[in-house]
Amino acid sequence: MNIIESLNWRYATKRMTGKKLPAKDLQTILDAIRLSASSYGLQPYHVIIIEDEAVKKQLQSMAYGQAQIVESSHVLVFTAWSNVNESKIDEYLQAYSDTSGMPVEKLIAFGLKDRMMQAIVSLSPQQQFSWAAKQAYIALGTGLIAAASLQIDATPMEGFIPAQVDELLGLKEKNLGSVVILALGYRDLENDMYQKAPKHRWSAEKLFTKI
Amino acid sequence: MNIIESLNWRYATKRMTGKKLPAKDLQTILDAIRLSASSYGLQPYHVIIIEDEAVKKQLQSMAYGQAQIVESSHVLVFTAWSNVNESKIDEYLQAYSDTSGMPVEKLIAFGLKDRMMQAIVSLSPQQQFSWAAKQAYIALGTGLIAAASLQIDATPMEGFIPAQVDELLGLKEKNLGSVVILALGYRDLENDMYQKAPKHRWSAEKLFTKI
Repeated sequence: MNIIESLNWRYATKRMTGKKLPAKDLQTILDAIRLSASSYGLQPYHVIIIEDEAVKKQLQSMAYGQAQIVESSHVLVFTAWSNVNESKIDEYLQAYSDTSGMPVEKLIAFGLKDRMMQAIVSLSPQQQFSWAAKQAYIALGTGLIAAASLQIDATPMEGFIPAQVDELLGLKEKNLGSVVILALGYRDLENDMYQKAPKHRWSAEKLFTKI
Repeated sequence: MNIIESLNWRYATKRMTGKKLPAKDLQTILDAIRLSASSYGLQPYHVIIIEDEAVKKQLQSMAYGQAQIVESSHVLVFTAWSNVNESKIDEYLQAYSDTSGMPVEKLIAFGLKDRMMQAIVSLSPQQQFSWAAKQAYIALGTGLIAAASLQIDATPMEGFIPAQVDELLGLKEKNLGSVVILALGYRDLENDMYQKAPKHRWSAEKLFTKI
């Protein structure tokens, strides 16, 4: 399937069969998420991969009882950095230096640290979290397409109580906050009444303006 | 190329050649963006597609002079709804009804309007815009992969002055605000020093936790 076929094939699956993803396919989805673009390449997020059934059940109770959480193979909880401080930027510069072979001093002389400090660290903590969450949404979009390209269903979910999920997963201590969930699995052809619903999107005329 | 190869092929291209995208490929990228997932399928965003060279030049001056804006084939400016009020929800329900054939009254009886009012309209305007922007970032991620799958370069850019861009494109009157730019084109193999830079990503150990 090409990307358009994949996007047309997918939908926000409400009921799943519980069937497990092959390890190889899960790996491909995670690889795609890891390779996602982000501003400065900072990837200011962390993804919790839940396969444990008891944890899924707890998560479900914090997500208005949505069935696909316990019927999924794996649930990915996308979390964003609660704030982005100078030490995070330094850690990134060191990691970038390790990958690129370019000394940290050179990256700093090049203005990279200054730019990141000004663009991100100067924001309020709330703005930083909001900015980090947006980067996580790029990764979410990537994960969605990666799953669809393998004909694996993926349901993005914002309907949960973040404070409770943060507590369940011990996110606060890790300087993280939950932003969006992605349930991975296989559509339940017998019980998902949404599978045949026509896909609604705004018309191109409504969504785009050409200049 | 599969999705992993596409993601490895792409990078945030800093210099482009000015070569134009074939109309068919631009259409595929726009189709992919239009088919992107969003919360409730609301797609609370609008994309301005700029091909006009004079407008690109003005945009460049609001984006710290970044070369790829004028060297691109097209620039997509992703804008998000400034706020999401009841009339927007009603417009969506009507459009969804037109697509699905399900009467608006039935959608309302089903609780869809109530849920959207509570989840979105009850937020502050600032939170609504932030929420809408996150949905636009899913579309951005989709556009990035769609471009890469066609071996078209795509550079996401947050480095611009939103108030100026909103003014340039008359966004305020349309109840929109600019959130992120995507320059589409072809990498300049001679002048883009970043094309050979190794791709840095956090390690899987750093980015993921399995439970």
